Amino acid sequence: MEDIYGNLLSEQAIANEKRICLLVLDGLGDVDNSGKGTALEIAKTPNFDALTKKSALGESIPVARGITPGSGPGHIGLFGYDPIFYQIGRGVLSALGVEFEIKQGDVAARLNFCTLDENGNVVDRRAGRIPTDENERVLQKIKDNIKKPEGIDMHLMTESEHRAVLVLRGKGLDDNVGDTDPQQTGIPPLDPARDEHASSKTAKMVNGLLDQIKDILRDEKQANFILTRGFAQLPSWPSFAERWKLKPAAVAGYPMYRGVARLFGMPVVATPTEAKGICEEAAKALKDHTFVFAHFKYTDKTGEDGDLDAKVKRIEEMDAALPALLEAKPDVLIITGDHSTPPALKAHSWHAVPMLMQAPYLRGPFLDRFHEKTCIQGELGTITAKEIIPLALAHSDKLQKFGA
Amino acid sequence: MEDIYGNLLSEQAIANEKRICLLVLDGLGDVDNSGKGTALEIAKTPNFDALTKKSALGESIPVARGITPGSGPGHIGLFGYDPIFYQIGRGVLSALGVEFEIKQGDVAARLNFCTLDENGNVVDRRAGRIPTDENERVLQKIKDNIKKPEGIDMHLMTESEHRAVLVLRGKGLDDNVGDTDPQQTGIPPLDPARDEHASSKTAKMVNGLLDQIKDILRDEKQANFILTRGFAQLPSWPSFAERWKLKPAAVAGYPMYRGVARLFGMPVVATPTEAKGICEEAAKALKDHTFVFAHFKYTDKTGEDGDLDAKVKRIEEMDAALPALLEAKPDVLIITGDHSTPPALKAHSWHAVPMLMQAPYLRGPFLDRFHEKTCIQGELGTITAKEIIPLALAHSDKLQKFGA
Repeated sequence: MEDIYGNLLSEQAIANEKRICLLVLDGLGDVDNSGKGTALEIAKTPNFDALTKKSALGESIPVARGITPGSGPGHIGLFGYDPIFYQIGRGVLSALGVEFEIKQGDVAARLNFCTLDENGNVVDRRAGRIPTDENERVLQKIKDNIKKPEGIDMHLMTESEHRAVLVLRGKGLDDNVGDTDPQQTGIPPLDPARDEHASSKTAKMVNGLLDQIKDILRDEKQANFILTRGFAQLPSWPSFAERWKLKPAAVAGYPMYRGVARLFGMPVVATPTEAKGICEEAAKALKDHTFVFAHFKYTDKTGEDGDLDAKVKRIEEMDAALPALLEAKPDVLIITGDHSTPPALKAHSWHAVPMLMQAPYLRGPFLDRFHEKTCIQGELGTITAKEIIPLALAHSDKLQKFGA
Repeated sequence: MEDIYGNLLSEQAIANEKRICLLVLDGLGDVDNSGKGTALEIAKTPNFDALTKKSALGESIPVARGITPGSGPGHIGLFGYDPIFYQIGRGVLSALGVEFEIKQGDVAARLNFCTLDENGNVVDRRAGRIPTDENERVLQKIKDNIKKPEGIDMHLMTESEHRAVLVLRGKGLDDNVGDTDPQQTGIPPLDPARDEHASSKTAKMVNGLLDQIKDILRDEKQANFILTRGFAQLPSWPSFAERWKLKPAAVAGYPMYRGVARLFGMPVVATPTEAKGICEEAAKALKDHTFVFAHFKYTDKTGEDGDLDAKVKRIEEMDAALPALLEAKPDVLIITGDHSTPPALKAHSWHAVPMLMQAPYLRGPFLDRFHEKTCIQGELGTITAKEIIPLALAHSDKLQKFGA
């Protein structure tokens, strides 16, 4: 199946000097909190309010109705790529997340340290969530003792707590390797070269590596084995610059988002994590880029913590920081999220995401506040995330007329 | 790729005596004009208002979010064909626009008279926008002097100003002919048989014709050559009558819209250009057709002229004329545009298009006025243009139940 709508939009795109800023407040959307309203509704946001009065509102569906997206698909949609056509394996996302410079042909997988009992059954799929420095110690032990397969470079990297990443580099690798995580306790890890993966040379190689690792870690108390998931290779997609004829830059402090930006060939020009730094760096980047992606993590983190007050506070921080970004006068400014993370759910959710677009050719209604209940009345309506970039291009005169 | 939704809808369609009228106010949609509102909002429209109170409102996306459609794709969508699946070349549209009866196998192209300097470089891609009678004179000179290729009929037709149309008729023609318009000045026209077009016999033939034309026009001061674009052949699509089991008629005064109607096998029964004539002729056509497409050009033309007052006045003219159409009591009446043409942009735009549907089975809300800000609250929501005909068929009991 071909992405004919996406391809058509890409073909219509042309370059000019106008500048677009996409400010992502990760996990922005919320549900009502026992009648108190959503986080955006509760927050005091004088700067958002002033901007809203001259902007278009709407809401976006990250992937499809009912689908709760991870950070990868959430951002892929925001970058104007249909997350269903453009899917990346978990392993690649993890490699990007630790800033490993993954290359075409590499195979990456997500690792979890786990605890096995004496019979080889999994008793803890996360090895008691060992601290990150313990992860580093055990990983070093593996690196010091493992015998690499001939002609293969092997990279093992700590992510955090029990999480790590494996990347294999060499000729003729494939990603048809089965997950070994059994997704439950009381049974042994699965065989990566089982049944449907039997034809994979890489699966057999991984099996051999796992045998070695089990041996190397046999005296460990907690992290005495690893579970593997999401073996994947880097897809070869058109870069963001090619697809949209934009000169992009990313302002993102967290590894995962820097990784997703790089996946689309977007250089990371600054890595602030606080609202003020993000707005200042985005303003700077707008001086010599026609597209700036700026990412704020804490609206998601506080949502995942189930901490409504903290989420409200983080939104207010971004509101206070906003003038620094507005000073750069982007031709089009989009403020939205990659998905919703309602504190009441303590997790990502499928709910539509509030979206604000400050742009030149608007029709109204012009509303007073920026939150879930006003967004649904806005002129942009409910759209899919992948439609946001095309709209921003249209508003900055970067999409040619289709047909005569 | 297959148009599965469109095909399903077509399969469900059945004929009956009920009559649908699609009144297209070309370029109807607008943006807000510095706080004054949109053209529809500003216009005094007592007849639209009365109709609105018992109609369904909504808005339509002509092709896809962000895409600014030309007249071709705009109408193809309104006729219930996805403009991305059903694409026509520029040359065919131009031939339809001058009412040339193009046939299967013909090859059509758009011509622009241009001015070359003594070195053969393009100095004016539009030959100073020569007047239409000058175009006719120079075109006649070519016709009088050119030697046609053996077995090929050649038709040259004036469009207006510097624009003309070429149609070649004969056996074995193809449309793999390169555009010769270099899209900039200071360089020579391109070779129609270059590289990727080298296998085309027609491209070589066109090259020979262009050599002759350069010689014939060498003493002209302004229009001393032509640039060619959009070589294309007629697609073979299901006719409107076949696809929707309707007996259609078109009431359209401008060549382009008569052409698009005929592309779908829709006979043009009258060619008024003013609102009053359009409504009267549409009412007449509804007597013996189950579908009438009526086209009003001036809402687009005034938008392209950037003349908000004139656009408002044209809307008021149509409002005043409407009772003549309502007298015919169509079972379903749709009033919408093929795209937006905001005077502030002086051009077609990507904005959604206001839409009103008077039909028997409505649910409300019933709103007071018909404009962009009420349409977004209407019961039809925001739909794609290709969904309008299926809705009209449903409201006239012409779509069978799907599945048992």
